[in-house]
Amino acid sequence: MSASAPTRVLVLGADAAGMSAAHQALRTARRTGRELAVTVLDKGTHTSYSACGIPYWMAGDVGSGDDLVARTADEHREAGIGLRLGVEVVAADLAARTVTTADGERVAYDELVVATGAPASVPDWALGPDGACWDGIGVVKTLDDGAAWRERFAAAGDGAHVVVVGAGYVGVEVAEAAMRHGFGVTVLTRGRGMSMLEDELAERVDLALCEAGAEVVLGVEVTGVDVVDGRVTGVQWEGGSREADLVVVAIGVRPATGFLAGSGVEMADNGALRPDPHGRVAEHLWAAGDCCEVRRRIDDTWVFRPLGTHAAKHGRALGDSLAGGTLSFDGMVDSSITRFALGEVYLEIARTGLSRRDAEAAGLDPVALLTEGTTASGYMPEAEPIAIWVMADRSSRRLLGVQVVGGHGAGKRVDAAAAVLWAGGTVDDLAWMDLAYAPPFATAWEVLQIAARRVAERL
Amino acid sequence: MSASAPTRVLVLGADAAGMSAAHQALRTARRTGRELAVTVLDKGTHTSYSACGIPYWMAGDVGSGDDLVARTADEHREAGIGLRLGVEVVAADLAARTVTTADGERVAYDELVVATGAPASVPDWALGPDGACWDGIGVVKTLDDGAAWRERFAAAGDGAHVVVVGAGYVGVEVAEAAMRHGFGVTVLTRGRGMSMLEDELAERVDLALCEAGAEVVLGVEVTGVDVVDGRVTGVQWEGGSREADLVVVAIGVRPATGFLAGSGVEMADNGALRPDPHGRVAEHLWAAGDCCEVRRRIDDTWVFRPLGTHAAKHGRALGDSLAGGTLSFDGMVDSSITRFALGEVYLEIARTGLSRRDAEAAGLDPVALLTEGTTASGYMPEAEPIAIWVMADRSSRRLLGVQVVGGHGAGKRVDAAAAVLWAGGTVDDLAWMDLAYAPPFATAWEVLQIAARRVAERL
Repeated sequence: MSASAPTRVLVLGADAAGMSAAHQALRTARRTGRELAVTVLDKGTHTSYSACGIPYWMAGDVGSGDDLVARTADEHREAGIGLRLGVEVVAADLAARTVTTADGERVAYDELVVATGAPASVPDWALGPDGACWDGIGVVKTLDDGAAWRERFAAAGDGAHVVVVGAGYVGVEVAEAAMRHGFGVTVLTRGRGMSMLEDELAERVDLALCEAGAEVVLGVEVTGVDVVDGRVTGVQWEGGSREADLVVVAIGVRPATGFLAGSGVEMADNGALRPDPHGRVAEHLWAAGDCCEVRRRIDDTWVFRPLGTHAAKHGRALGDSLAGGTLSFDGMVDSSITRFALGEVYLEIARTGLSRRDAEAAGLDPVALLTEGTTASGYMPEAEPIAIWVMADRSSRRLLGVQVVGGHGAGKRVDAAAAVLWAGGTVDDLAWMDLAYAPPFATAWEVLQIAARRVAERL
Repeated sequence: MSASAPTRVLVLGADAAGMSAAHQALRTARRTGRELAVTVLDKGTHTSYSACGIPYWMAGDVGSGDDLVARTADEHREAGIGLRLGVEVVAADLAARTVTTADGERVAYDELVVATGAPASVPDWALGPDGACWDGIGVVKTLDDGAAWRERFAAAGDGAHVVVVGAGYVGVEVAEAAMRHGFGVTVLTRGRGMSMLEDELAERVDLALCEAGAEVVLGVEVTGVDVVDGRVTGVQWEGGSREADLVVVAIGVRPATGFLAGSGVEMADNGALRPDPHGRVAEHLWAAGDCCEVRRRIDDTWVFRPLGTHAAKHGRALGDSLAGGTLSFDGMVDSSITRFALGEVYLEIARTGLSRRDAEAAGLDPVALLTEGTTASGYMPEAEPIAIWVMADRSSRRLLGVQVVGGHGAGKRVDAAAAVLWAGGTVDDLAWMDLAYAPPFATAWEVLQIAARRVAERL
């Protein structure tokens, strides 16, 4: 290769992390004067789509799958990216700097960016003899999954019953989507559901689901399904069963890093990569997005949090760094949010920071309290109940975590706490800082600050 | 006085600052073992009411003035506070440690807490020969003001026209209130209105008012009113006039510290006191709330920001400190919020930090940009337009200010920025920190963070 030949950047994966990296690399290269030839391979047929939006498409809030596509393949190509869809990479030779596709093609690179994401986990009981899910069973991850669910919902009769296996964010969102179509819904979960929340908040989510008309079955592990003519008709667990016309599997995702097996690259138990803040994994090897763990700043721990917002940020930092820039993704503080909305039932659900278990595992001495209040001044029609859980470390007074369940305006309150966590601030900072107050939006002592103050008084 | 006699704490003013101080002093004294006798004098007839709620009472969102009272006089007395209403203090002898009431009574104290608030400013043109406002003219500050407006609104005919003088938060809120009753509304303002916002955001508020059917007249100074039989019938300014059935004066407030004139206590030009973070002004003299300026942390400057949330916090720190505690009110970052809601028009309006003019006055080198986006992922029905203005200092990269105008969920986004300002963080912190993301609440790159990133790229 001559000195003037462009650096061949090969990106695997055409969603948030990969495409953010690709575009940012080209942007930064224009500034730094580097010559890059960026190629992106993806085994799917879509680029830059919002997986988080699929439950809302299923619900009918979003008109079509195309609406979930932030940038089409053509738009990426017009920006100078060599994009190839339907190309799956099955092996990599890091020493030779080549990857091998499912068709046996070898593709050479100078820099490899792994942004392969994390497909949905599918348990054995969901699969028929051909290795595909039985009819009526599916996951919620790709646009094709979403399209399949739209078809299944449209074909299902009025009295159809949907069993949702898994009660994380996706499980709750999909339960809402199914109920909006008027289907009966049963949510089954191994533990107590909403494992990202403390018990006292998680149970409020369970209750809201029940209030909206769902069945919620906690603490059960699905052992099998009933199938008639290749089509699911029920779900079984130890000591119980439920008739079902449709079964949504929402039990999590797993990093798509199998093609790196045996490469010697360090991975977490689930196969997740652990790139540095610039996206570097090893020499000439970069990674970002759902195929990676991310660094949680509060306890300086690797955790697996496949989220579009981390993917977009880490991808951008990676692309910049690869092209000679200095942007870095300096970890996260474990913020997340969702909502459950059906008829009169409306609940925002959010968290940031550590759980009590995380804090204890980190050797901290957590003090936590739940505080009840209202989202607006009590005399305003906007006022809705809100429950806020705040946790701090006894000796250092450091804020450790905040969780919220409540009405309109409740959820994004965690953002102010996330900013305190980002800065390593104390529960006193949260209690006394200057949040915007007016009666339609808050109480004069904002409920988040009352909650923080109550914890501060107990340290 | 024997060593065991309780310390006589005299609090002037029975609203947020004064009553927070009184209650916290008693709470802390129980812990520190101090003996306090707390007396509160207030010239009005109500305690602990939300002045911020009055426009919503005027609008009809709040059923009665009682709903705005957080704690009644009886509730305060039951907590052990010696409360006397209808008692106005007109002079103080700080050396002798006495105050004199309008009735000529002298009240002795050991510690004096000034929490007298800030009554609404009333221009000469509003006043009749008896020193009271002409019929049909009033301010918006006390519960009595609110009750008077309820009566005036109820008595006004269908085609009544209301002129609101002043286009700050109260002006906009009162305009909304009047329009909700179906009245025609004209907003008159000296400058360009919404002076707490940069031009490019303020004009969006003006446009929203117009879109909702209000007349907005900028850049005029009211010179007089037309009066028939003691009742206002119009408003005049240089070169113009407007017929009016009712005139709301919302041009600001002024600290009620006249009784300290000549006492030698340091005051701002408008008479505001400048207590330290513990509420101390001088020996045996304390103050908090709307009669004070507050310290803005970002540029370490005294500013007059009469807001219930500052009053409650500073009062609490004062009460604690007076009784031997260590709580402190470590200033603010100039956060505020309101909304304008009428029919289809809905706008949240919020700010935190410095204005461009503040930054330049502080010798900083501000770089600011306005960014347009949506409050939720673009494909969601919740998505509404939002405009975010972000300003940072060129050399230090420190975040200096954020302002927002937009739909549902727009306003409280400033809280995350306020937390960064509180911590003295950079615009990069704001751009890269971990805010909670899900499609109904945000875009994958949250619009606030896109706005910060755009500024960061220009430093």
